[in-house]
Amino acid sequence: MKKIEHIGIAVKSLETSNELFAKLFGKEHYKIESVEREGVKTAFFMMGETKIELLESSNENSAIAKFIEKRGEGVHHIAYAVDDILAEMHRLESLGFQLLNKEPLPGADNKLICFLHPKTTNGVLVELCMDKPI
Amino acid sequence: MKKIEHIGIAVKSLETSNELFAKLFGKEHYKIESVEREGVKTAFFMMGETKIELLESSNENSAIAKFIEKRGEGVHHIAYAVDDILAEMHRLESLGFQLLNKEPLPGADNKLICFLHPKTTNGVLVELCMDKPI
Repeated sequence: MKKIEHIGIAVKSLETSNELFAKLFGKEHYKIESVEREGVKTAFFMMGETKIELLESSNENSAIAKFIEKRGEGVHHIAYAVDDILAEMHRLESLGFQLLNKEPLPGADNKLICFLHPKTTNGVLVELCMDKPI
Repeated sequence: MKKIEHIGIAVKSLETSNELFAKLFGKEHYKIESVEREGVKTAFFMMGETKIELLESSNENSAIAKFIEKRGEGVHHIAYAVDDILAEMHRLESLGFQLLNKEPLPGADNKLICFLHPKTTNGVLVELCMDKPI
């Protein structure tokens, strides 16, 4: 793992939260993207080498909708940049971490991603993420 | 705000979680520090330009003890590096963010810090942090 690629924050309304985070950071989001498979609409802010990804549910059965229902708005996951996602998935699984997907999945921002179950990572949903090979 | 200085994660046992995060990151923590005023013992890992700060309560009335009792282990706060903490506190308060301390407080890792109430920051406890002037 090289750096924190992004921090995902679950929000009820992207419109409201984009405004709030623009005030907090003193700058606007630079991108909006929908990830149909996950039922989310996302907005990205740059903060040093890390992105803040705001996540709004686009359907009531999405993971974000369920997260907000259970815990309210707040930090949903932390994503770490890796060079070789398959090697890292193998390394972590062999150490006892539980992978939520056995194959890398396409994520927002042109990434391949894998989630680790928070019960094996101190209550923090961890995402591995690698740039898609060109 | 320049970058994410650290992410604070509430843990029940620093010993157990230091081991877990060492496996996750493939490297050990580089520092242990106690902050008496906040009733916490902390461990730090470097991850790119950001630190991961694990927080274990050292007394049952600490904010971390209460957080874990209410929400379980997980992300407790996100700290942003600022150049001028007083200017940033003033800017944010004037925009409607609620400061949890009106004067900067000494934090771990030789910092001056200020917290923003999570009710004004989308459920995420935000810390501003500046290196203490020499």
